[in-house]
Amino acid sequence: MESFFTFLEKRVSDCSSLLCVGLDPHLSDLSVPSAEAAASFCIDLVERTAPYAAAFKPNAAFFEQFGAPGWAALEKVIAAVRERSQRLGSLIPVILDAKRGDIASTAEAYARSSFYALGAHAVTLSPYLGRDSVEPFLNDPEKGAFLLCRTSNPGAADLQDLEIAGTGEPLYLAVARQAQAWNSRNNIGLVVGATQLEPMARIRRATPGLWFLAPGIGAQGGDLEAALQAGLRPDGRGLLLPVSRAISRAPDPGKAAAELRDRIIDIQYRLTRSKA
Amino acid sequence: MESFFTFLEKRVSDCSSLLCVGLDPHLSDLSVPSAEAAASFCIDLVERTAPYAAAFKPNAAFFEQFGAPGWAALEKVIAAVRERSQRLGSLIPVILDAKRGDIASTAEAYARSSFYALGAHAVTLSPYLGRDSVEPFLNDPEKGAFLLCRTSNPGAADLQDLEIAGTGEPLYLAVARQAQAWNSRNNIGLVVGATQLEPMARIRRATPGLWFLAPGIGAQGGDLEAALQAGLRPDGRGLLLPVSRAISRAPDPGKAAAELRDRIIDIQYRLTRSKA
Repeated sequence: MESFFTFLEKRVSDCSSLLCVGLDPHLSDLSVPSAEAAASFCIDLVERTAPYAAAFKPNAAFFEQFGAPGWAALEKVIAAVRERSQRLGSLIPVILDAKRGDIASTAEAYARSSFYALGAHAVTLSPYLGRDSVEPFLNDPEKGAFLLCRTSNPGAADLQDLEIAGTGEPLYLAVARQAQAWNSRNNIGLVVGATQLEPMARIRRATPGLWFLAPGIGAQGGDLEAALQAGLRPDGRGLLLPVSRAISRAPDPGKAAAELRDRIIDIQYRLTRSKA
Repeated sequence: MESFFTFLEKRVSDCSSLLCVGLDPHLSDLSVPSAEAAASFCIDLVERTAPYAAAFKPNAAFFEQFGAPGWAALEKVIAAVRERSQRLGSLIPVILDAKRGDIASTAEAYARSSFYALGAHAVTLSPYLGRDSVEPFLNDPEKGAFLLCRTSNPGAADLQDLEIAGTGEPLYLAVARQAQAWNSRNNIGLVVGATQLEPMARIRRATPGLWFLAPGIGAQGGDLEAALQAGLRPDGRGLLLPVSRAISRAPDPGKAAAELRDRIIDIQYRLTRSKA
């Protein structure tokens, strides 16, 4: 059965990359604060970085801030990824970073919006409302969902690190175990901050096969290596590394993406060889 | 200091109502599945029910499913509430049911989108990312946020009911206590399912002064009375009751809203008299 993660694995093979290029048109990145400028900024980034991108990740917030024209810009950006994929002859999945989470019929409307109105291939979701809020995003195996698990922001500890009675484990591991239990169609992954090494290693042990979307990679190679060591599966995959500003604000975003892709390959090679 | 809840309290006084009319244009409610039909459906509902509405609550998902035109429809619906408020001479707050939740600069973009691009007065949020994901929605005291606390869907128990080690309390009470601690500007409330009577009573004891947005009121007066008993503050307020289909699908939505408003007043009166 084809599923979201079979598509992603195919793309990872095609471009030898675990890089996920973030499409976050911050107001400070734009020459003028308009939806049109946001679309141009993102489409230029797609054009330059596509050969090195395992996936693209537009964040809905930076489009919504422009109202209806922002939503139209988001549609255009996703269409540009589709068009660029066709030219490359390799489908680059689009992960809509929306962090949605609502019940039953409302979740169905969000799934329609993300997957069919916008044309994204996967979406990020909050796990707080539980299984029935996630299921409408999983019905079509070719579409995927990444559940927030352990994030890297300061407030992450407020709930995610609370220890659940009787298990000796933090809440984020309960989320990870639930996601794994719900993954009957190979289309659930987790959002795990790349700077949270101990949580990442614990989540990897609890869910050996799941893909992690792991934001937070800095400019330093050391951080990158530690994150890959904590989060990669033994097959050298399972970790998708979203990078936004370190690419978009580089003098040459294509070159920055290529270099980052290559640095990841080096580390992957060393780590998987040392495990073999 | 004026705050979101001083505006809401004023409106509750003006219309003697705790009713929050849900604006959820389900596809099955529309003659044709279009953004224009969604806007007409909601604006008609606003027109008929405004005199009895303490607040209106559009759910973003039912607009997003139509893409950019859906977002434009949502703007029109919120503008219609503003216009109707002016004719009534009483501001009816709009609570955007969006259940957003993201970090720092992204949360700021969502706040701009909800409060300024769309013109909503408050928004619903997921608490999973913690304090720094909520703060950008609280900086302006005249704008408010309702944090998901204990919802009424089947999956709510998956995380919200997990007992936190060392406290003997479920996760939802940790969320309630955090919200109370962060409420320095009188602009945080909680989402608490009206059918969850024991959780609602526990959350009320933990947070005696907070407003609850409490969906799930059925057609039966018994349910309504039990929910008010569990959730009202001693002053007979503190509970905002969102109702969608029971009003929008009634033969006369205005009459249905008026009757529900009056039934709530009766119960409020009885309960506060018995407490006095």
